[in-house]
Amino acid sequence: MAFRRKKFSQTDLQEHLNFIPLGGLGEIGKNMYVLEYNDEMIVIDSGLKFPDSELPGIDYIVPDITYLENNRERILAIIITHGHEDHTGGLPYVLSHLDVPIYGTQLTLGLIKNKLQDDLPGFKPKTFEIKAGDVIKIGSFTIRFIAVAHSIPDGVALSIDTPLGKIIHTGDFKLDSTPIDGRVTDYGAFAEEGDKGVMLLCSDSTNAERKGFTPSERIISGTLDNLYRTYRNKRIIISSFASNVHRIQQVADVSARFNRKIAFLGRSMIRNVELARETGYLKIDSKMIIQIEESWKYSDNQLVIVTTGSQGEPFSGLVTMSKGENKAIDVGEHDVVFLLASVIPGNEKLVNNTINRLFAQGCEVVYEKERQIHVSGHASSEELKIIMNITKPQYFVPVHGEYKHMVRHSQLAQEVGIPQRNIFLMINGEILTFTRNAPPHKNGHVQSGAVIIDGNAAGSIKSEVMKERREIAEDGVLVVAAAVDDKGNLISPVVIETQGVFISDDSKQVFNELYAASERAIQELAGKRANIDALKKTIKARVRDVLRKRNSSFAVVLPVISVKYSGFEESSFFEKDFF
Amino acid sequence: MAFRRKKFSQTDLQEHLNFIPLGGLGEIGKNMYVLEYNDEMIVIDSGLKFPDSELPGIDYIVPDITYLENNRERILAIIITHGHEDHTGGLPYVLSHLDVPIYGTQLTLGLIKNKLQDDLPGFKPKTFEIKAGDVIKIGSFTIRFIAVAHSIPDGVALSIDTPLGKIIHTGDFKLDSTPIDGRVTDYGAFAEEGDKGVMLLCSDSTNAERKGFTPSERIISGTLDNLYRTYRNKRIIISSFASNVHRIQQVADVSARFNRKIAFLGRSMIRNVELARETGYLKIDSKMIIQIEESWKYSDNQLVIVTTGSQGEPFSGLVTMSKGENKAIDVGEHDVVFLLASVIPGNEKLVNNTINRLFAQGCEVVYEKERQIHVSGHASSEELKIIMNITKPQYFVPVHGEYKHMVRHSQLAQEVGIPQRNIFLMINGEILTFTRNAPPHKNGHVQSGAVIIDGNAAGSIKSEVMKERREIAEDGVLVVAAAVDDKGNLISPVVIETQGVFISDDSKQVFNELYAASERAIQELAGKRANIDALKKTIKARVRDVLRKRNSSFAVVLPVISVKYSGFEESSFFEKDFF
Repeated sequence: MAFRRKKFSQTDLQEHLNFIPLGGLGEIGKNMYVLEYNDEMIVIDSGLKFPDSELPGIDYIVPDITYLENNRERILAIIITHGHEDHTGGLPYVLSHLDVPIYGTQLTLGLIKNKLQDDLPGFKPKTFEIKAGDVIKIGSFTIRFIAVAHSIPDGVALSIDTPLGKIIHTGDFKLDSTPIDGRVTDYGAFAEEGDKGVMLLCSDSTNAERKGFTPSERIISGTLDNLYRTYRNKRIIISSFASNVHRIQQVADVSARFNRKIAFLGRSMIRNVELARETGYLKIDSKMIIQIEESWKYSDNQLVIVTTGSQGEPFSGLVTMSKGENKAIDVGEHDVVFLLASVIPGNEKLVNNTINRLFAQGCEVVYEKERQIHVSGHASSEELKIIMNITKPQYFVPVHGEYKHMVRHSQLAQEVGIPQRNIFLMINGEILTFTRNAPPHKNGHVQSGAVIIDGNAAGSIKSEVMKERREIAEDGVLVVAAAVDDKGNLISPVVIETQGVFISDDSKQVFNELYAASERAIQELAGKRANIDALKKTIKARVRDVLRKRNSSFAVVLPVISVKYSGFEESSFFEKDFF
Repeated sequence: MAFRRKKFSQTDLQEHLNFIPLGGLGEIGKNMYVLEYNDEMIVIDSGLKFPDSELPGIDYIVPDITYLENNRERILAIIITHGHEDHTGGLPYVLSHLDVPIYGTQLTLGLIKNKLQDDLPGFKPKTFEIKAGDVIKIGSFTIRFIAVAHSIPDGVALSIDTPLGKIIHTGDFKLDSTPIDGRVTDYGAFAEEGDKGVMLLCSDSTNAERKGFTPSERIISGTLDNLYRTYRNKRIIISSFASNVHRIQQVADVSARFNRKIAFLGRSMIRNVELARETGYLKIDSKMIIQIEESWKYSDNQLVIVTTGSQGEPFSGLVTMSKGENKAIDVGEHDVVFLLASVIPGNEKLVNNTINRLFAQGCEVVYEKERQIHVSGHASSEELKIIMNITKPQYFVPVHGEYKHMVRHSQLAQEVGIPQRNIFLMINGEILTFTRNAPPHKNGHVQSGAVIIDGNAAGSIKSEVMKERREIAEDGVLVVAAAVDDKGNLISPVVIETQGVFISDDSKQVFNELYAASERAIQELAGKRANIDALKKTIKARVRDVLRKRNSSFAVVLPVISVKYSGFEESSFFEKDFF
């Protein structure tokens, strides 16, 4: 992880504007975009990404911020577009390295403060609350915040004036014409900026593959109405994203119509509901809400339980219920579960297992897409084309998506008339440079990548550690332990232990050969000028030969050698010390 | 894995018929169903299942056949319904334990023989070729083979007459009215058996969640026609299942119309095409087919490459192309790739990575569902209800599906009037017993489960080994090696090695504490009456304390102790020998 301070190139010396994605391109997650005008820098979003099965045992991933750390004195602000984890979840890591002012809307900052209380207790972030419609000046950047509809309230797009031109960054958005909170995406503001002239549009590529329009969040009310009617005699259990305040609002409204009380279950659900109610984003009559502990007082048809676990998260409310391990709730034939969420790619297996287990508990489960149990928070093709036509950008960079989404999005841009040479498909770390006298051009790279966060460890895991884990996960590890004197003679028997290694039927015979091979390797080198590394290498080679021949096993061989030095005289065997 | 011969229960003594699924219930894969009339036994299918990420490093899974091994002299036949791996892939394992006659259609047996040549070279299976329409008698079972349409040719359902009643087992099927080979599912035969009276229907639950009808395989021709027209100037690369002969037929037909030659790439693709052409299931003019090595002679618009890799299989044609590592083919901007397959649950990540990499190579990729690039081979709800109405079974067992599919299928059965008490939701290993004088009832379990096949190891991996692998995959392994004398005194320094363990920033300090803790543990027990196990336990506990406190790590701690015995006298320290 060695780094050098970036040398100033020729472009650095003249007036220039750089757009540098540090995360969010070629992936869904860990969004982080840098905008530099000469020596001033602002950062847009600071997200995390959840790992897939290729990274066993780790908790989440954040962008490598070496470039920001090397330029810490130049960073003016981090601006957060909305409160989702893939835009805010990197903040505990980033702020523990860089104490930079944070700008965001009320709900966004509320969610961030809750998160920091957990992950950086005692830390007081410098936050500045803005609201849609505000225009603020940060250094040479003039930033207008534009309301956008999304699957969390209070999201904003950014229109950023710089001395070299205007940049629009959409954040996550959709053009929902009937949003639950009535806060429609502000077409007027986008159009006004478009008329003034937009140099660069950076737009959300998540749903660029999807034809047509993303349906309004409001259709969920109709779905719920039908479902409540169909299952009028059952207890209703609903699982949804804890941050989707609009959806929880609809659940509350329909529950009120059907005279059902709501019990919230799960820490993040309860905390988000509290925050959203306190700040006025969620309107639920207090009389509607009961504690889960008093739910026994209500009959099945008087009750709705709203909980987490729509992605099959191991310790969530829904998953513990499906296993019969929830402390508050036992589920059975009198229950129906509505999974009001789609499955995030990578979580298919977890969600599927949860559904199968709920059925095995006797519940009815409603999860099928055709029942309209979920709508996306991201714009589909037609909406994306509308935003391009409204903002009329000269240049276009598709952001926030896998490579396939970015390619599809750039094809849409060409459909509405943006020439291919004005569209830049970028990767994380790449620099796109704008100057006054020449067209923009790709201008090299800054350090970028992923930092892996494991458990409570405040630091990051090196990628070698992850590589080692993957190796042993595949075929197990075989340890060969030996103690030798300083001439390299064995002073106690070799011991072999395995973890996760499959030894075929005649394992006694295989082990005998492994012991013999290890001891032969040690004898071979004893008395010779060699060192620990050479000894380990020889043992590894001999043991692997046996494994390959006898067992077709590819276990990782880990020799562990203890050396007993006789007094203070220099060892003849070991050229270098091993501690 | 200890087993006892099943004791005869009271039901065993009277006339009875048992239906016992050994695999395929609560899962998609490893289908295997047993039918016993008194002491005669037939087996339907013998499949495998591919593992998910929870089982790193293993190749595939087959049913536990302990019950069959314990009753080997009673097994009359294995009947295979069609040639897919989830119905045939367990045969190399099963036949290496039980040399039983196999019944199947021509193509099914051809595919099985290819597989056995690879996996059990030299083994000569006892095969009996049947065709749809045949009626054969095996012991007390009279079996009629009924043609069904599916995503592989030559599939059959079974109508099995037993002295206690008729059983229909659908195998995998759909009611495609316009199949590519013209071999429509034989409604007439099902109806005839239905009129005679069906006691039990066991039907394919895979698509019980889907409304309506599964489209005909023939729609792929229309899709291909459009795509060939749209991409008339590009080289076309098509990836599909190697066993889907109907789809390859359509590719060949459309390619002929557009004057394109076909090069097949990938071993399983080439072998399946050869077999299907030899047996007449695939009709392609030899002049249409070229070797991949001569593909350079043809311009882009004269060529189609058909290859494997539609599921992102690591060494398949498509995946190696996407990585720029294919020996025969480099892909780029002049190529378009059609992924003519849906993603099997669990493979989402692999397929997605492949698509993203193909885009990064510059290819256009067609993979979106709305382009009708795939149709399922399994019947949807309306088709499932038709089969129930045609066969009019008294009792119903949904087979071939996850638990959720089985629940949905049983709901469909109730819709068409099969009473809930006549529907049995079973799990693998359960026994459903029919007798002459009483309704059928669940009658206990036989041993069932999964046998894990890893690499070339002929045997199976024990589940403890898999558990160990999962543990070390999560947090790594930390080895503490020590050599002691027979009094338990350390005779050489403790050595600690790690694999996949994350040690936070002050790792030197942490290691010092780990060494000190290990040595203290050894000193604590030295000279006392203890044994190796106690010593290991103490070291583990002390080391874990340090890890928890200093590093929040949950690494697996693996102590490895070597003991140097002084001569032949009995050890005072070690109560038991440790080898």
